[in-house]
Amino acid sequence: MSQRPALKVAQFGLGPIGLETLKAATEKPTLVVLGGVDIDPAKTGRDLGDLTGLPALAGRRVFASLEALLATARPDVVFHTAVSRTREAFPSLAAMARAGLNVVSSCEELLLPHLREPQLAAELDQLCRQNGARIVGAGVNPGFVMDLLPVCLTGVCRQVRAIHVQRVVNASTRRGPLQRKIGSGWTPAEFEHRFQAGTAGHAGLRESAAFIARALGWELTELVETGRAIVAEHDIRTPFVEVQRGQCCGLHQHAEAKCNGRVCVSLDLKMYLDAPDPHDACQIDGDPPLQLRIPGGVAGDTATVAALLNVAPCLLQSPPGLRLLTELPLPHCWA
Amino acid sequence: MSQRPALKVAQFGLGPIGLETLKAATEKPTLVVLGGVDIDPAKTGRDLGDLTGLPALAGRRVFASLEALLATARPDVVFHTAVSRTREAFPSLAAMARAGLNVVSSCEELLLPHLREPQLAAELDQLCRQNGARIVGAGVNPGFVMDLLPVCLTGVCRQVRAIHVQRVVNASTRRGPLQRKIGSGWTPAEFEHRFQAGTAGHAGLRESAAFIARALGWELTELVETGRAIVAEHDIRTPFVEVQRGQCCGLHQHAEAKCNGRVCVSLDLKMYLDAPDPHDACQIDGDPPLQLRIPGGVAGDTATVAALLNVAPCLLQSPPGLRLLTELPLPHCWA
Repeated sequence: MSQRPALKVAQFGLGPIGLETLKAATEKPTLVVLGGVDIDPAKTGRDLGDLTGLPALAGRRVFASLEALLATARPDVVFHTAVSRTREAFPSLAAMARAGLNVVSSCEELLLPHLREPQLAAELDQLCRQNGARIVGAGVNPGFVMDLLPVCLTGVCRQVRAIHVQRVVNASTRRGPLQRKIGSGWTPAEFEHRFQAGTAGHAGLRESAAFIARALGWELTELVETGRAIVAEHDIRTPFVEVQRGQCCGLHQHAEAKCNGRVCVSLDLKMYLDAPDPHDACQIDGDPPLQLRIPGGVAGDTATVAALLNVAPCLLQSPPGLRLLTELPLPHCWA
Repeated sequence: MSQRPALKVAQFGLGPIGLETLKAATEKPTLVVLGGVDIDPAKTGRDLGDLTGLPALAGRRVFASLEALLATARPDVVFHTAVSRTREAFPSLAAMARAGLNVVSSCEELLLPHLREPQLAAELDQLCRQNGARIVGAGVNPGFVMDLLPVCLTGVCRQVRAIHVQRVVNASTRRGPLQRKIGSGWTPAEFEHRFQAGTAGHAGLRESAAFIARALGWELTELVETGRAIVAEHDIRTPFVEVQRGQCCGLHQHAEAKCNGRVCVSLDLKMYLDAPDPHDACQIDGDPPLQLRIPGGVAGDTATVAALLNVAPCLLQSPPGLRLLTELPLPHCWA
């Protein structure tokens, strides 16, 4: 493990997570950044050294399309940080699969793309196999605390009847886009309306529940998700948002999967401003029963970009295809 | 994952863990037990149904050798639960490799056989590759709580400077052989003498430390282990042992790995009778920093046999060779 060959990487999507992924990539001596891709005209053509403030990236360009980047160099791995839905990601991912690339994506639904988009997933998988490409979805949530880590814990269980996970994130410590995404400052009714419409809330919770069930071999008979606003009990001001008492200051989402009428997976997620006692916790109702707690929780964009980077070498060791995290060697930090 | 093909398995070594592995195997509808192997004349030739008390195993025999078993049937996976040292396991494992078998072993040193036996490990690896065989060491400790689980946790870390793990086991809740193995009833001097001689203590702690370092890409410059007796502060009686105040009632082992003079891995293990607050805990000194705690700890033979069974399907998905757990898809419970 200590003698890793150099990996050439490219960044698709230069939003906050994309830029942070580039910064993290420069910290790995064995990663070579070839360039970035973004459709934003304010970014295309620019120097990545300027855009990120990192001298190490000087001379690397932002291309307007994947094709333009591929005309100059061929990456071993593409980090794809653009959209949350498989359907939206599909055109870009299909092009990458056709080009035989290896892609680690932060697209939340890609944790288990078969759940909502079985046909697109089958098509992507076939394109990957035909062209020697590999695609996998990764991240902290979905991708770790509410799915992969609980699945890992069952590795020492002889039987598992149910898995329950709770995550409480203090959104006050997170970046502006996340504080807005959770509905800060909206009326509770507005949050709930947008949640129902699919335009607000945390993406990927149903995927996490179904991912666990699939790993454990459980055939789901029901998968329901609820989302409601958490209402501020006092005025809250962060560097990014202002929330008055009675307004929405975050979300409470809950997903529950049933197997033959019995709850086999429950995932409970609270992300809100000034949340006390942030943590991740998991209970395995099994043989043996197990409890796990991560005080403070695994939060922050640092962990998200780490999850993307750490999966890359594992993806390269797996056969071509649209992959799930459970099909790869265990992702871990590497020097 | 839900449509697993049937796996034919054989059990090599019919001590307490071997028998428990057989029992757990009968709980998996997709596992078919072919038979067992043990050199104990009191066991060879017997019916596994009698030996285990499980009617499901009636008609399956205990063979005196691997060759005798292979003459009747060919297992997909062999569970090897016999010895703690790679050197002692080598003759049996080499025979299994030559026969092209897939082996999950509880041999503690096999978590990282290259550490103490680089030549035997290279030889085993070559035999596996030549014959399409696969061998991996697995278990709870080593194999999970003090190595694989901390490595899994680093999957969301951008950088890691050091990893610290603590495990406290209340040996009063464990089986007799474990209560004796930790030195219950010996004088403290006797425990320490036997620990130095390598005939007492927990096997595999150095392997766990080196396993973590290897996964993280750290070149170790020092690896030290200490072991001392924990002295009973009051008389203790369990169904298996009697310990008087002042006698040894368990062990405190500590392994520390350094990388360029700096401690990068520390593992602290206490296993003793009447230990209060048993738990597993891990701290990652990294970016982000992380803490994990499992109240009660992952203990018990149930978890050990689960770890062996759960690794089997992952081993079959990996290329032939002497494998490490980090090279396999993530082991997890399966229905």
